[in-house]
Amino acid sequence: MNFELNDEQSAYVQAAREFAQGEFAPHAAEWDEQEIFPKAAFKKAGELGFCSIYASEAIGGLGLSRLEAALIFEEMAAADPSTTAFLTIHNMVTWMLGEWATPTIKAQWGAAMASGEKLGSYCLTEPGSGSDAASLVTRAELVNDQYVLNGAKAFISGAGDTDVLIVMARTGGSGASGVSSLVVPADSPGITYGRKEKKMGWNSQSTRAVVFENVKVPKENLLGNEGEGFKFAMRGLDGGRINIATCSVGAAQGALDAARTYMHERKQFGQPLATFQALQFKLADMATNVVAARQMVRLAACKLDAGSSDASTYCAMAKRFATDLGFQVCLDGQQLHGGYGYLKDYPLERLVRDTRVHQILEGTNEIMRVIIARQLLEKGADIR
Amino acid sequence: MNFELNDEQSAYVQAAREFAQGEFAPHAAEWDEQEIFPKAAFKKAGELGFCSIYASEAIGGLGLSRLEAALIFEEMAAADPSTTAFLTIHNMVTWMLGEWATPTIKAQWGAAMASGEKLGSYCLTEPGSGSDAASLVTRAELVNDQYVLNGAKAFISGAGDTDVLIVMARTGGSGASGVSSLVVPADSPGITYGRKEKKMGWNSQSTRAVVFENVKVPKENLLGNEGEGFKFAMRGLDGGRINIATCSVGAAQGALDAARTYMHERKQFGQPLATFQALQFKLADMATNVVAARQMVRLAACKLDAGSSDASTYCAMAKRFATDLGFQVCLDGQQLHGGYGYLKDYPLERLVRDTRVHQILEGTNEIMRVIIARQLLEKGADIR
Amino acid sequence: MNFELNDEQSAYVQAAREFAQGEFAPHAAEWDEQEIFPKAAFKKAGELGFCSIYASEAIGGLGLSRLEAALIFEEMAAADPSTTAFLTIHNMVTWMLGEWATPTIKAQWGAAMASGEKLGSYCLTEPGSGSDAASLVTRAELVNDQYVLNGAKAFISGAGDTDVLIVMARTGGSGASGVSSLVVPADSPGITYGRKEKKMGWNSQSTRAVVFENVKVPKENLLGNEGEGFKFAMRGLDGGRINIATCSVGAAQGALDAARTYMHERKQFGQPLATFQALQFKLADMATNVVAARQMVRLAACKLDAGSSDASTYCAMAKRFATDLGFQVCLDGQQLHGGYGYLKDYPLERLVRDTRVHQILEGTNEIMRVIIARQLLEKGADIR
Amino acid sequence: MNFELNDEQSAYVQAAREFAQGEFAPHAAEWDEQEIFPKAAFKKAGELGFCSIYASEAIGGLGLSRLEAALIFEEMAAADPSTTAFLTIHNMVTWMLGEWATPTIKAQWGAAMASGEKLGSYCLTEPGSGSDAASLVTRAELVNDQYVLNGAKAFISGAGDTDVLIVMARTGGSGASGVSSLVVPADSPGITYGRKEKKMGWNSQSTRAVVFENVKVPKENLLGNEGEGFKFAMRGLDGGRINIATCSVGAAQGALDAARTYMHERKQFGQPLATFQALQFKLADMATNVVAARQMVRLAACKLDAGSSDASTYCAMAKRFATDLGFQVCLDGQQLHGGYGYLKDYPLERLVRDTRVHQILEGTNEIMRVIIARQLLEKGADIR
Repeated sequence: MNFELNDEQSAYVQAAREFAQGEFAPHAAEWDEQEIFPKAAFKKAGELGFCSIYASEAIGGLGLSRLEAALIFEEMAAADPSTTAFLTIHNMVTWMLGEWATPTIKAQWGAAMASGEKLGSYCLTEPGSGSDAASLVTRAELVNDQYVLNGAKAFISGAGDTDVLIVMARTGGSGASGVSSLVVPADSPGITYGRKEKKMGWNSQSTRAVVFENVKVPKENLLGNEGEGFKFAMRGLDGGRINIATCSVGAAQGALDAARTYMHERKQFGQPLATFQALQFKLADMATNVVAARQMVRLAACKLDAGSSDASTYCAMAKRFATDLGFQVCLDGQQLHGGYGYLKDYPLERLVRDTRVHQILEGTNEIMRVIIARQLLEKGADIR
Repeated sequence: MNFELNDEQSAYVQAAREFAQGEFAPHAAEWDEQEIFPKAAFKKAGELGFCSIYASEAIGGLGLSRLEAALIFEEMAAADPSTTAFLTIHNMVTWMLGEWATPTIKAQWGAAMASGEKLGSYCLTEPGSGSDAASLVTRAELVNDQYVLNGAKAFISGAGDTDVLIVMARTGGSGASGVSSLVVPADSPGITYGRKEKKMGWNSQSTRAVVFENVKVPKENLLGNEGEGFKFAMRGLDGGRINIATCSVGAAQGALDAARTYMHERKQFGQPLATFQALQFKLADMATNVVAARQMVRLAACKLDAGSSDASTYCAMAKRFATDLGFQVCLDGQQLHGGYGYLKDYPLERLVRDTRVHQILEGTNEIMRVIIARQLLEKGADIR
Repeated sequence: MNFELNDEQSAYVQAAREFAQGEFAPHAAEWDEQEIFPKAAFKKAGELGFCSIYASEAIGGLGLSRLEAALIFEEMAAADPSTTAFLTIHNMVTWMLGEWATPTIKAQWGAAMASGEKLGSYCLTEPGSGSDAASLVTRAELVNDQYVLNGAKAFISGAGDTDVLIVMARTGGSGASGVSSLVVPADSPGITYGRKEKKMGWNSQSTRAVVFENVKVPKENLLGNEGEGFKFAMRGLDGGRINIATCSVGAAQGALDAARTYMHERKQFGQPLATFQALQFKLADMATNVVAARQMVRLAACKLDAGSSDASTYCAMAKRFATDLGFQVCLDGQQLHGGYGYLKDYPLERLVRDTRVHQILEGTNEIMRVIIARQLLEKGADIR
Repeated sequence: MNFELNDEQSAYVQAAREFAQGEFAPHAAEWDEQEIFPKAAFKKAGELGFCSIYASEAIGGLGLSRLEAALIFEEMAAADPSTTAFLTIHNMVTWMLGEWATPTIKAQWGAAMASGEKLGSYCLTEPGSGSDAASLVTRAELVNDQYVLNGAKAFISGAGDTDVLIVMARTGGSGASGVSSLVVPADSPGITYGRKEKKMGWNSQSTRAVVFENVKVPKENLLGNEGEGFKFAMRGLDGGRINIATCSVGAAQGALDAARTYMHERKQFGQPLATFQALQFKLADMATNVVAARQMVRLAACKLDAGSSDASTYCAMAKRFATDLGFQVCLDGQQLHGGYGYLKDYPLERLVRDTRVHQILEGTNEIMRVIIARQLLEKGADIR
């Protein structure tokens, strides 16, 4: 057992921190307020390999582990959780492409995705199937070596601004086993994008519905085999949960740092806030929660990297725990800022708005509890 | 002991609910998003007396109690807490004017304020004196029967859009006893308004800094006597705390109602959300918290109406408790909406953003604890 | 709306406080430690009418309201929640007897129960039917004008030490409508009592199982009519929930008072605990929670007194809320005592142990949520 | 980074689990109820090396790390946190002796302590210096090569039943630098023990005050040098905090296991508790909290093993976090047991009582926050 980063990991962390403080932090407020999807910043991230952290080296990825991805994303999220969260989605899409795409598709999209020149969206959720992903109804019919895609997706991050979509669609019967996964160019005829959703936060990434009407997709765009889509989605989800959880940890660390600085600067009743015991205690609890959340994420990431049979349980625990504590830490940091915490001049209110959705997506935290409880009660899993 | 509303109170509640559902609810999202200060809606509220609920009848107010004001504001806040919160500030300003202004000033401003034709702002907080109100440094020097006002105020609700300011300024020495209260026309020469603050919420009311440079204010614009300003401010604050607390209760009731409706409509895994036990429990706790918060507000309002010596303690408890629980209820309601709770198409995310500031202003909830603890420990107050 | 006690209520509160501080407080630790069921103290309580506070005057009760009972019990529980909790059960039994017993039974038991010379137990719960009371299987067969009682009850407070049992038994078919209620002398042939349960707290009241083997009960011992038993039980439960909730409020007030005193006395780092801000904040939150819990209890009691159709909902909310907050306040008070809070020399650890069960019995707090949610979701109840 | 146990660690865990389930679990309830200090069980633990897990091999200890000690203690605490907690104290005393005692003292006591034939107590706390350890007033005057010890200690675990005491006493001036540490035979003339404290829990270990009146202690019984006592105490405390924290984790795991089993066995409304979603969610949160608490403990232990400069901060965080969450998990497990959770027939109420003190001792959780905040705010420590 060993909780220390090795030298290579420390170097990645350092690089990510510098990148994020230099390229994300100065613009995060503007991207939020003006709802800018910062493609140039993603390209710069790509130069460091951060668009394909755990994608296979064969397509130009760094080929790192989920743990290392979590370390990197955490640093970036401390500067801007919304932008980082989209980057995690792009990483997931790129990884899926690198794992299961046909050689043709890898050749076509791999390098551009890995470098961040092209960006990807992930199309799983449908209007009627938020938490119940396996009930999706978008269909892909194989007609003359082409899939014909019909249906609608909702809450798709980046949709309308990205270049390629990985779409989960039903090629077979009902249930999880009837689902397949397709790589679909974002500008394919028959695709229409809904209006940009107006959201509480996550404003640096557009969210739109996507409608598919007789969209023709070559057969070679299938990931793996027919019927494997839900399996891929689930594998993606475990990683996605770690990613979103680490974004919460990063944001919380950002809130903690900001709050500490503010406590030294701001005076009330003639003394810096840092001298008031009740506020000190709040800061202490924030720090403790950040550390605890971080450990849960890293533990789950290691489980996933090791291919542990209980990885999904730990990913669900990490997602539930880190997103709840991370949000609370951001709220606490905002509270320590008093009235200034409510203003957009300070990052706190943005961190609160951005992390709020982490408790909801990639499976709500209620669904996480369903997953954990099922393992404990139906499968008899132990968590020792 | 009696927890029921009398007929007159029920009639006011009913009127407020109808007004709010008709005039606030349909526009609340737009006012938030486009940052509209809805003067016309305030005027309509004024037609029902809701711009001067507890202001004296002598200036055209309804002359009702704080309890009754809380009942009315709660209904309005269920539709739009931000707009209602400004209305409570205007009510406070109007009440102060009706209580302590000279006959000249009452004649000049009373009727217009009471009817909502003119609107008022309350200028207490300064950039350096958030929680430590008594340390304010804005000065008013009496020169030839005119006060000459210099200084700056921060976080002033409505500033730039309102017609009259009640300004707390130092006419004497340091500390609370050196503070006086002045009625200042908002367009007086020498007043400049800062840029509109960009905030997390409360977007239907503008917030600006106000700078006074040699602003001349006639002596008759003084409220009461010199040195009474902080006393008035404190009396205003007790009421202000009840007001903000009741806005949290109203918003929480709004969130509860919305969540219940959504639980019946939304299906997951083939069943309405209303059938899932863990979600039922969340709704049950939301309802319980709304009732508990409401009771605390009403208790404190009755204490204030009765002039109880412990009214300030109960107001502080109500403010702390109702704003914390109210915010939590809004978060819970948002969570029950899943991804849709994060979209501006539903009111939940707005309720969360708007109620967040209630934990911060009118004295942060940390300051409330200071007040309560001081009563318990230094004054030996009992809360039985 | 009015939150003040009237003169008569204040007098009862004063009397209860004096009685409890004089007769309960000095002995509570000993009764707990030595597991003494303090019959003499109950008799003294009876002299003040506290054994039949809301029982009908016809049998010698005070005929007061549930609200007034709550006021009185709260004061007593501040001294000893365990002993008070048993007293509330005896009051409930006495009230049921006064409401629905035949004249013969009233004549036989009424006066002795009302005065506390005889004590009663309430036999509803069975080993297999904790939260699911309506599934009880104890049977009472009518044979020649006598009921023949067979079955077993569990967790019966006072059993083995009391004089009369009110037993819920099945005289008809399955479900709630088959249940009747019988007054059974505690020494009837065929009754055997289990060993005294060893419990975490509530040690001043014995808890035993009760087994009925062919116990013969005269027909005139039936309360009301056959099949009404569950209805009586439910009416009793609403009151029982208020009673247990008010015991939590009282205990919490006791913990608050003790903690405040201790904070003035105990020094650390050269200063009284009362000077440490973080501890002040804890005390402030304790006080706020006590007030909030108390209001919920009084609101529910008034609803029950008024026969409101939503009384059960409010009783469930009050029970859930007040027992959760009350327990937390006791824990906080214990924490403020540091190591001394863990010792039996101080009342805190006893208050924690005694109030813990309030979250469990009279319907667990989970069952309370089931009740509240059903009203909200199935019945469409409003809590405005 | 690596969260897996190595083979040797797994073997120790397995051995500890078997030992604890075989030797502690069957007797824990009895030891609690009859307040038995189980010397024979400690001796058996000693046979496995568990009386000197991290004591130096030179005196017969296992010479393992703090991490490995935490792994072992966690397993034991799942069976009996009170007994395990005493064992951790004995381990600490033995370790101190092995680290800093003179050769004479090591020869005299080392082997017997390491094997558990002799047991040790740790005497730091005084009646007036709970959290403020450095203010201790017990004095040791050096007179003719003997220390003469005068003063009183409070809350000493095992005192009266153990063989040797490590006593912190003032040999110099005020403050931390005047404190020295002495090895004192428990039966030295002049030592008197107070009555056995009556406690909420931790009943398998006696707690007594210890009074020293002119107790003569040979100079060679000094640990290290004069003035190093507080340094040793602080080093002991870091380890002590990990130990108590891991006892909370173990107890919580025990509560989780018991609750899961009960949920399968117990039926209500015709179904096992395991089928009720709200209860499933509670179990899921319990499990998540156990994992999170465990990680914090292991992280802190590794920091201490590595001699990290921030080890004390992490130990304080681990202690605060794991004891709070551990206690909550025990409460939740008790709640899931309904009424049976309140009975001594089930382990839950004992786990609640035993873990409650973990939030208080080894520095209250409030003191932990003081430590953490000081590092963050005064020392500028980072927790990344």
